[in-house]
Amino acid sequence: MKWKRSERLVDMTYYLLDHPQQLIPLTLFADMYQSAKSSISEDLTIVKETFEEKGIGLLMTVPGAAGGVKYIPKMRDDAIHKVVEDFMQELGHSDRLLPGGYLYMTDLLGNPQLMNRVGKVFASAFANTPIDVIMTVATKGIPIAHAIAKHLNVPVVVVRRDSKVTEGSTVSINYVSGSSRRIQTMVLSKRSMKSGQRVLITDDFMKVGGTMNGMKNLLEEFNCHLAGVAVLVEAIHADENLVDNYLSLVKLHEVNEKDRTIALTEGNYFSKGGNE
Amino acid sequence: MKWKRSERLVDMTYYLLDHPQQLIPLTLFADMYQSAKSSISEDLTIVKETFEEKGIGLLMTVPGAAGGVKYIPKMRDDAIHKVVEDFMQELGHSDRLLPGGYLYMTDLLGNPQLMNRVGKVFASAFANTPIDVIMTVATKGIPIAHAIAKHLNVPVVVVRRDSKVTEGSTVSINYVSGSSRRIQTMVLSKRSMKSGQRVLITDDFMKVGGTMNGMKNLLEEFNCHLAGVAVLVEAIHADENLVDNYLSLVKLHEVNEKDRTIALTEGNYFSKGGNE
Repeated sequence: MKWKRSERLVDMTYYLLDHPQQLIPLTLFADMYQSAKSSISEDLTIVKETFEEKGIGLLMTVPGAAGGVKYIPKMRDDAIHKVVEDFMQELGHSDRLLPGGYLYMTDLLGNPQLMNRVGKVFASAFANTPIDVIMTVATKGIPIAHAIAKHLNVPVVVVRRDSKVTEGSTVSINYVSGSSRRIQTMVLSKRSMKSGQRVLITDDFMKVGGTMNGMKNLLEEFNCHLAGVAVLVEAIHADENLVDNYLSLVKLHEVNEKDRTIALTEGNYFSKGGNE
Repeated sequence: MKWKRSERLVDMTYYLLDHPQQLIPLTLFADMYQSAKSSISEDLTIVKETFEEKGIGLLMTVPGAAGGVKYIPKMRDDAIHKVVEDFMQELGHSDRLLPGGYLYMTDLLGNPQLMNRVGKVFASAFANTPIDVIMTVATKGIPIAHAIAKHLNVPVVVVRRDSKVTEGSTVSINYVSGSSRRIQTMVLSKRSMKSGQRVLITDDFMKVGGTMNGMKNLLEEFNCHLAGVAVLVEAIHADENLVDNYLSLVKLHEVNEKDRTIALTEGNYFSKGGNE
């Protein structure tokens, strides 16, 4: 069956969105649609222009025999600001206040559409950074890690507090939790990373950065390299941060339990040149 | 700016894929593309036919003033068999054997492309079942829960073993773990579900079903209803199952540590009429 251009455009859009950050040879499309490479090239120009016009992402074309086309999820700044604003609006509701000045945000981490958007925001920032693995810590970092991973097309590894029989041999480290100054343990399956891999670490919340720092130490045990740090909400505080280079989406300045107010601002995403 | 059909098709495909299980009024597209509703209808016919032809999913059109179009992720049987076969192939490698007859599958749960496919397989089975929430238990069920949730466009709630200050008030139950017959505890934030919601429960692995049964008891504490049970791998055993109605993707029959063999077959997905 020979495909019409209109059908090719629909299916090609689906295929590219489903295979982010992967080089797809033009011959694959030519075979799939029984069409000449020249027609496929014209199709891709239309897809590329529409993706750019609507801020869906970039299509990179690699010429030559080993070439092809690659879809790179990359949002525009205005769309990213919108995601951050919507998120702050949600997070700023006074009914999120918990005893002790904590904020309830489990529901936001359980919202797949929101997580998908947050994941694309961070994937946009790291679109041109070589990353092999995304590392997070159980439990609340997992949705964010997977959301970023889907757009960057790399695996997720989950650090645990305890060792489980289903993890096989593990590497374990002790670290000092930032705020409580307690010694804690982190465990990661030995099989989960190979020496030399470049690792993006992520979590939902960061105060002084003890957990992030623990993950940094852990990846060094695997002879891996830190490729970046992405955090959804960072709490502003008087102490020194244990982690220097990180991107945050939102800053939490103050929680006032008496007035029931929450002071939030945009994170350092833009000032750190997140979306380069 | 007036959009050409070819550009509309690309963007409309993106928009529909990004908003599964949501009714989108035709006027939204008509405004977005500055085009007549009749042109939008013709576009949607092309998208619909291509989605069906390639097994991407269904486009349901709801006529009338309050009508619109809804994308329903639904894979075809042949594509689902392929996902199950690929998964079994991966899972059957002898180097996954762990001491005690356990199987290492953490890397598969950390693979976002695989999880996305597994999520779509289960979302296909529950495409026409009313579901409000997906419930899973920390840690390993989370990627599957989110993958299904993304295609069904519903939130995820995560049951924990311990209570955390960031969860606010919680509901806690004791249950008997199926295989070890030990009493264990499950905790869920009170805010995470509302009375009357229909809940799909999911996990990566099920033996006699103690954890699943615990989640069933927990959702009853919230006056919620069980809408379905989805499990990635079920272990075949001699004891009686604690859960009756569930869908599984793969059955694990035997792990032979001496011969280093793993016996797997397709789960009950098809025999239970998963993809109706």
